[in-house]
Amino acid sequence: MRQRQPPSYYINGLRAGDRLVLSRAITLVESQLPSDQLLARQVLEGVLPHIPQTSVRVGITGVPGVGKSTFIETFGTYLTGLGKQLAVLAIDPTSQRSGGSILGDKTRMESLSMDPRAYIRPSPAGDSLGGVAHRTRETMLLCEAAGFDVILIETVGVGQSETLVHGMVDFFLLLMLAGAGDELQGMKRGIMELADALAITKADGDNTNAAKRARVEYQNALHLFPPTGSGWQPPVLTCSALTGTGIGGVWAMIERHQTIFQQSGERLRHRQTQSLDWFRTLLRQQIEQQFFSQSGMAERLEQLESQVRLGTLLPTQAVDQLIRP
Amino acid sequence: MRQRQPPSYYINGLRAGDRLVLSRAITLVESQLPSDQLLARQVLEGVLPHIPQTSVRVGITGVPGVGKSTFIETFGTYLTGLGKQLAVLAIDPTSQRSGGSILGDKTRMESLSMDPRAYIRPSPAGDSLGGVAHRTRETMLLCEAAGFDVILIETVGVGQSETLVHGMVDFFLLLMLAGAGDELQGMKRGIMELADALAITKADGDNTNAAKRARVEYQNALHLFPPTGSGWQPPVLTCSALTGTGIGGVWAMIERHQTIFQQSGERLRHRQTQSLDWFRTLLRQQIEQQFFSQSGMAERLEQLESQVRLGTLLPTQAVDQLIRP
Repeated sequence: MRQRQPPSYYINGLRAGDRLVLSRAITLVESQLPSDQLLARQVLEGVLPHIPQTSVRVGITGVPGVGKSTFIETFGTYLTGLGKQLAVLAIDPTSQRSGGSILGDKTRMESLSMDPRAYIRPSPAGDSLGGVAHRTRETMLLCEAAGFDVILIETVGVGQSETLVHGMVDFFLLLMLAGAGDELQGMKRGIMELADALAITKADGDNTNAAKRARVEYQNALHLFPPTGSGWQPPVLTCSALTGTGIGGVWAMIERHQTIFQQSGERLRHRQTQSLDWFRTLLRQQIEQQFFSQSGMAERLEQLESQVRLGTLLPTQAVDQLIRP
Repeated sequence: MRQRQPPSYYINGLRAGDRLVLSRAITLVESQLPSDQLLARQVLEGVLPHIPQTSVRVGITGVPGVGKSTFIETFGTYLTGLGKQLAVLAIDPTSQRSGGSILGDKTRMESLSMDPRAYIRPSPAGDSLGGVAHRTRETMLLCEAAGFDVILIETVGVGQSETLVHGMVDFFLLLMLAGAGDELQGMKRGIMELADALAITKADGDNTNAAKRARVEYQNALHLFPPTGSGWQPPVLTCSALTGTGIGGVWAMIERHQTIFQQSGERLRHRQTQSLDWFRTLLRQQIEQQFFSQSGMAERLEQLESQVRLGTLLPTQAVDQLIRP
């Protein structure tokens, strides 16, 4: 059906900022077909030297109901208003089962999806969260090659997705609801430690004062964490996607962070560490795949597993029979 | 220092229920020395045919402050009062850094640690949570070989430790504090889905009514989850470690669960699946270790990693250079 194009088609199209070519290149990256994967790799290798290192990669998370879509809609429109080219990606582990996606319904971000400076791409469906993360990283590189200078990566806050997104962005923003101090318990442990900033959403109308109080509470709570090596003290802001109040402040704060980290060299070191982690994770996946695809392995595994299942063989014994030292 | 003994010393000692030998055998299991590991394996292989399949393995978790130690102290004393031989183990990922342990300070469970029918073993320190889990499983087998018929495995509710403990027990008990409905948010997502029962602790004095209300709330919340395949509907109980109220009810409920699952064959199937998962996890660990210990691998990795770090090589390209298809 889809006509096969040579790598140069994608490479040139991406470098020219062609949206249609970008979408097609992402489809290659997401494809499970070996021929598509090979082509995707050729395209990525071709654009790699031309990817500017100046993009800002922002991860956004928060519990369901915090208003992530509305925030991204308002925040994204603010950014394109500044002349930014904005790409919005998502990592959604729940989309793996249904094949659907939190961003699949573009009506969620109605005006942003019509914005000529914005590009919204749903979360890829995949067999593993690791695979989804890998493809999202490659998609991010394609978007950067196509000239997008701000990348927002949304995650639904389930499972390991925050950790994965944290591992691929320059700035990790945690959206929080105004509420009681109990709110602090609403998150998975460790997420607040990952955050470079907290933004309390829905700070409008009757909720304004509650948001301000929450801001103080969170700010106090964040002081309980040991400072990061870089000395960045995660700030807590309030904002309203409804009125727009504080939205500009969020971006100003991210820019301030980028300037500080650029000057200290921390931003570069951070990206380098992330690339290394990506490589190591991918390597482990491939090592396992190579091992398990050995000839006769399926049968031997089945035999050993039946003994392990019955409890007549210890796992350590079974492993020894598969791995010769 | 420590005198080396032949496998038969440990095997016979364990089968005789000798506590001192048990402690020494666990020390072997936890040791990083290859000679100790070999000996540990010989001991495990020797006792494996004699391990009764009748033990009850109970995992216990809950947020910090829920009163896990106090619960285990009272619950454990109740069990030894019934004539049970009780082993208390722990998986504590936080002990990996400090080398300490949540159970290291036995004064936490003062009367239980003096109980001749109870055996308390701190969480092993280790380089990885996976390694700690592996050793805890082997320790559990040693305890069973030594005649312990109830094994409690406590976890501090950090990181992946609940999932690991859930993967090695027959019954997973979640302790909860009485409080507002907001309490439901205090847990990591997915933990409530793992629980076979909830017990609301500190149901005494002024807190009794709050505990009763919480019981209803949790019971309602649990109905929102799809029923497990076995048809077991996780009950919600209240108890007080201070007054002892409800402690016997928790054990009666666990026994009821065991009877039902024993009769349906579900208990056996569950243990078989757990053994398989243990084997697969261990196998993956060994596959990686074998790959990375190849001759010259360290140097090649270092070269590739420096290119990946600089961004001149994509992770996929680097992986291809290490793994020949």
